[in-house]
Amino acid sequence: MDTRPHDPQTEFELIDWLRRQSQNFPPSILRHIGDDCAVFDPGFTRKLAVTSDMLLEDVHFRRRWINPFLLGRKSLLVNLSDLSAMGAHPYACLLNLAVPKALAGDYFRSFMEGFLQEGRKQDCPLVGGDLSRYESICVSVTAFGSLKEGDPAWRSAAQPGDLVLLVGDTGFSRLGFLILQDENPADFWELATEQQLGARVRDSFRRRCLEAHLLPRPPLQVGAWLCENSLVHAMIDVSDGLVSDLMHILHQSGSASELELGNLPLPEQGVGDMNPLEAALNGGEDYALLFTASEEQVNRLAKTYPGDFPAYRIIGRIIEGEPAVFLLHDGIRERYEPRGFDHFR
Amino acid sequence: MDTRPHDPQTEFELIDWLRRQSQNFPPSILRHIGDDCAVFDPGFTRKLAVTSDMLLEDVHFRRRWINPFLLGRKSLLVNLSDLSAMGAHPYACLLNLAVPKALAGDYFRSFMEGFLQEGRKQDCPLVGGDLSRYESICVSVTAFGSLKEGDPAWRSAAQPGDLVLLVGDTGFSRLGFLILQDENPADFWELATEQQLGARVRDSFRRRCLEAHLLPRPPLQVGAWLCENSLVHAMIDVSDGLVSDLMHILHQSGSASELELGNLPLPEQGVGDMNPLEAALNGGEDYALLFTASEEQVNRLAKTYPGDFPAYRIIGRIIEGEPAVFLLHDGIRERYEPRGFDHFR
Repeated sequence: MDTRPHDPQTEFELIDWLRRQSQNFPPSILRHIGDDCAVFDPGFTRKLAVTSDMLLEDVHFRRRWINPFLLGRKSLLVNLSDLSAMGAHPYACLLNLAVPKALAGDYFRSFMEGFLQEGRKQDCPLVGGDLSRYESICVSVTAFGSLKEGDPAWRSAAQPGDLVLLVGDTGFSRLGFLILQDENPADFWELATEQQLGARVRDSFRRRCLEAHLLPRPPLQVGAWLCENSLVHAMIDVSDGLVSDLMHILHQSGSASELELGNLPLPEQGVGDMNPLEAALNGGEDYALLFTASEEQVNRLAKTYPGDFPAYRIIGRIIEGEPAVFLLHDGIRERYEPRGFDHFR
Repeated sequence: MDTRPHDPQTEFELIDWLRRQSQNFPPSILRHIGDDCAVFDPGFTRKLAVTSDMLLEDVHFRRRWINPFLLGRKSLLVNLSDLSAMGAHPYACLLNLAVPKALAGDYFRSFMEGFLQEGRKQDCPLVGGDLSRYESICVSVTAFGSLKEGDPAWRSAAQPGDLVLLVGDTGFSRLGFLILQDENPADFWELATEQQLGARVRDSFRRRCLEAHLLPRPPLQVGAWLCENSLVHAMIDVSDGLVSDLMHILHQSGSASELELGNLPLPEQGVGDMNPLEAALNGGEDYALLFTASEEQVNRLAKTYPGDFPAYRIIGRIIEGEPAVFLLHDGIRERYEPRGFDHFR
């Protein structure tokens, strides 16, 4: 509906540039970038998982705080984290991207480089989508995943008596966000790798927080492994905050949960007014993997968990009751109300 | 990354409301709204088509000019139009929706009513996505389609000697946009059906333009029928403008095209500075179906085209040459440069 003149050159140039980027397409991807639709031969999977997430400037990220390369990378990863929480392996993705006209070409290319680099790493080629100009940056990614052995993990599958487990840490990402808020973001803007961040930020705690926020590494291989070995009941990735996401499981399973604070991996310090416990329970954007499993499953898990996977921790238990989270610490039991950030997702 | 307080009630209430809306899920949809991913048993289709489009406030629509019910309906239809141009039947869809906080609940429900009503009509249930608050309205829809008999139609499949055919009209939608621009949009804002529009707008030309813009009816059944009967080479839906979209086919097929102006269905008048020819060639948002077919295919088409489908017209021909569109009228042949609106899609 926009009335500005058509500029086919821009459009064709960007799509040509995109087509020249190296990507590996499995033979079951029959058509990708440049047609009305991408087309798959569905024989590649026993079950197909699909998920879609929008990242909006000034809601989910700030333009001056994360460079387009890292934003591209993160935009894909947050969707792959959802696939992983279902037990699916990445297969392919679609991207809708809007960027302001003033940024257009360079921002687009840098975003795409991060997005495609991560896609190559995770075997998740880009197969389509659309591009728009807009006053703010809007990203919407749809990811497709394949489910092989075993059953997907539903949020509704938690049972009283299940243990609650966590792979990865929570809280660091929110603290990284707060550090960025206090710093001159230009100091970090051009950094694109852990090595560059490490060279710039000497303090290991600050580095870890910034890494968690700018360069998340969701434990993508764990979810599928758990499902394929029937070692999980309910599962979710921690994006809104540990307690908020646990509440999703509890709402859908019709149960409650107790968390043992002593078992939670807490950041060693806070940032500003945000203390380590509040960050860990209520931070958001952690992309850790939260799941429930029976004691029998946890026993098997302990014997078979691959040594090269990130560590898991048993942090609590599912109990009978209305959906609620209770914290246990020093012999005290108190109900906790989540206040994680929420885009009424 | 937003720091406002978490409001789980809103989130759970809206998702609960959504779950209570009537939708038909085929048995191959194993999981839908409310988990990290939707899950399909891929046995439902021989080939799977996927497409995704973003609709952004003030680029693709204006909040005061189209009510949320019609915007919801249109958001789904523009994606189904892409599926149709590939020869696919609608199967399911994902929706990412961001709306300003001030509008949140009512706008969301009205948008969803339009979206879900159209989904029921087109057998395309909503299976997932996410919701955000944002300063502007952003919509991103991903649609899945099934390809049954025959082959999908690729944009690259046009061959010199093919005829160019059009199902549906072009130009009316752009003229409807211009009428809205001149009118008090509040006069139309609450209208949600052809009947209501007909009762409000007595002039049949103006009514037709407004209908084309606010209540598009893409010929969704035609694309799949053409593919299933091997009656099409290249195909695309007209969203950027007739000539712009034809140029997509020409770029990908490495050919040129001549259009016979006398065969084009032109609006009977223009609006403001926009004459009927310019609107028809260069309007945009028409959601007509543009395709190429050999003379042999067109002969078969003429004999078998269902009487209850919207009429097709032969409007031109594919010729050898660099990608370009030439207009033929009154014995004159001139090259036409498209200036359809473009969001560097």
